Amino acid sequence: MDYTAKLDEALTRLHDEGRYRTFIDIERKKGHYPHAVWTTPEGDKRDITVWCGNDYLGMGQHPVVLAAMHEALDATGAGSGGTRNISGTTVYHKRLEAELADLHRKEEALLFTSAYIANDATLSTLPRLFPGLIIYSDALNHASMIEGIRRNGGEKRIFKHNDLDDLRAKLEADDPAAPKLIAFESVYSMDGDFGPIEAICDLAEEFGALTYLDEVHAVGMYGPCGGGIAERDGLSGRIDIINGTLAKAFGVMGGYIAASAKMCDAVRSYAPGFIFTTSLPPAVAAGAAASVAHLKTDQARRDAQQTQAAILKTRLRGLGLPIIDHGSHIVPLIVGDPVHTQKLSDMLLMDHGIYVQPINFPTVPRGTERLRFTPSPVHGPKELDSLVRALDELWSHCALNRADLAG
Amino acid sequence: MDYTAKLDEALTRLHDEGRYRTFIDIERKKGHYPHAVWTTPEGDKRDITVWCGNDYLGMGQHPVVLAAMHEALDATGAGSGGTRNISGTTVYHKRLEAELADLHRKEEALLFTSAYIANDATLSTLPRLFPGLIIYSDALNHASMIEGIRRNGGEKRIFKHNDLDDLRAKLEADDPAAPKLIAFESVYSMDGDFGPIEAICDLAEEFGALTYLDEVHAVGMYGPCGGGIAERDGLSGRIDIINGTLAKAFGVMGGYIAASAKMCDAVRSYAPGFIFTTSLPPAVAAGAAASVAHLKTDQARRDAQQTQAAILKTRLRGLGLPIIDHGSHIVPLIVGDPVHTQKLSDMLLMDHGIYVQPINFPTVPRGTERLRFTPSPVHGPKELDSLVRALDELWSHCALNRADLAG
Repeated sequence: MDYTAKLDEALTRLHDEGRYRTFIDIERKKGHYPHAVWTTPEGDKRDITVWCGNDYLGMGQHPVVLAAMHEALDATGAGSGGTRNISGTTVYHKRLEAELADLHRKEEALLFTSAYIANDATLSTLPRLFPGLIIYSDALNHASMIEGIRRNGGEKRIFKHNDLDDLRAKLEADDPAAPKLIAFESVYSMDGDFGPIEAICDLAEEFGALTYLDEVHAVGMYGPCGGGIAERDGLSGRIDIINGTLAKAFGVMGGYIAASAKMCDAVRSYAPGFIFTTSLPPAVAAGAAASVAHLKTDQARRDAQQTQAAILKTRLRGLGLPIIDHGSHIVPLIVGDPVHTQKLSDMLLMDHGIYVQPINFPTVPRGTERLRFTPSPVHGPKELDSLVRALDELWSHCALNRADLAG
Repeated sequence: MDYTAKLDEALTRLHDEGRYRTFIDIERKKGHYPHAVWTTPEGDKRDITVWCGNDYLGMGQHPVVLAAMHEALDATGAGSGGTRNISGTTVYHKRLEAELADLHRKEEALLFTSAYIANDATLSTLPRLFPGLIIYSDALNHASMIEGIRRNGGEKRIFKHNDLDDLRAKLEADDPAAPKLIAFESVYSMDGDFGPIEAICDLAEEFGALTYLDEVHAVGMYGPCGGGIAERDGLSGRIDIINGTLAKAFGVMGGYIAASAKMCDAVRSYAPGFIFTTSLPPAVAAGAAASVAHLKTDQARRDAQQTQAAILKTRLRGLGLPIIDHGSHIVPLIVGDPVHTQKLSDMLLMDHGIYVQPINFPTVPRGTERLRFTPSPVHGPKELDSLVRALDELWSHCALNRADLAG
């Protein structure tokens, strides 16, 4: 067996399809984000502006977050030293869980090392708690939800993205007595469109299904306290399990679910991905708790993000560039070809010091390859000007279509 | 469908079997570990000594680790702000990966958010890289390996723990042309026994199989540079993939694999658990890198840990207490009954300020329920004395057997 040849084959496939990823090595400068320093493959250092980060509100450099982390490091040290059950539960974890339960107006919250593992561990454990569970999953759900749903080979139905008729048809086709769960997202990160939360809750009620909502691209950014789209729309009470991240708008690391006390207790007790892993470092939990608490009142930061996104979309649309606009903070610019997308990304980085990663298949469908911009409150008018000018110039230079795909 | 009733059933099962876990809420005091403060369920604060942590060498409070974390926080902020591919690769991650590759004398290393996800993601991805792969897995492998091996429904054979004859028989029974991988551990954390690395490598060579070694309970603690048992025994070169953690002896958080450049590249490119998750915070990566680098030369700390473990085992054996001793740093004391084990743990905590979590089924077989002590260089003679005296007293008080099970 020639294992190396097999690895070569697997890697060649990616190169052939133009999907091989090369990581861009950057170093953010605290207080100067979105500015950062790029270390080129040749070892040169160059100033760049990050336009594709998920530190959506710039909280990763907020003084209250950093102070909380420094303090926890000084008070308690680096790692937690254990799983949650074996010496790894600290006051920092408990405080953060209380902060998150309050954020979503749920009885409890349960921390995981990431939102990826929160989705994977929770969705793969629910069929053990509800034998015979059928999971109805939106076709564009995140990889972590798909992995969790697939893991233990339970029953699943994939409904067309945001398609209530298809979801209803699939619910109607199944045994009315079977336990059911509808899993979906509030903001789909690649198009920046919203899930129809209220209508899905209505269907769930009609068919006696639980609801599982991934708010990863919404927590911190939507709702009067940053509780996400469900909070904004007054629907949190109708969602059984909310999944969120501490690594995007909250600027730190980690993930969680918020739900009833019994649901959290059962997942806590049965999910291997929760039980058998070291808990988050106390300093990470402390920083995240400070960020969540801060964003409960900092509406100005949420407003600034929306304003920046609106300005960027207006200006790109004014130039006839084919953006997608569903009214969220995410600004996808469709290029429609993996080679062009990579080329544009390379030229933006090399010639303009603008860093935006190309998004290719399988993350998005073939023919919709794109650049995906994430404006934030710390992207000022100067950064915005530079980006718009550079895109205008490159679009002409590459003779790309304008307006065709504008949505 | 009454979902709450189903949750009640699931939780009642655990209570009925005496397996319901209650987390102990503690706060370590930097510089004073293993001393910590326990917040009781009633909200009282009490001083305790932690005897079950996995910060095996006390590196979680080492000044070089904390200084590196403070510095990174000041320089670059809290979170990484993205997945590795989308703005989340930083110089801190690259440095840590280089440090780890060097530690294991491998071409490259690949970071994950935990060793749990490193095992799960890597082992579930290998069948995609080597179609038809058969994984031979030691019966006592960690939950994260089991989850990874089970995930995509690939071929697997479970061989009896450390049983070379059984492993050989299973290898012989399969198609000689099929790709194969043997997955095992160097130190099994519940008994503290060692895997027969050299003999397994011989079998792997004979049958053309890859080797996958989990060194989670060995890295930092064994080998002249802390590269684990494989390094100690001069066998690193014969292991294809080494899995390790940054959350135990290195005292911080995160996990990794170390392997050939092509292997790391392929796993990096195909594993959803690597691709679709925010990378570790730069400060965490910086702290871990400092810890790995430090332990490459701090042999005194490794020696002190072994000395403390030897003293504890000698003293407990002297009292006729049934410990298991395979010559590792882990000291399991068999109680053999879940109720007694819980009771002993409660009395140690309440009456003696000694915190050691009971280990029950399914983590260990029924009838071998135990207390599992993890002496470290920061557990001094005073802490050791208190522990031995408390155990002696409680053993008499509870009229438990002495010497029966001593191994």
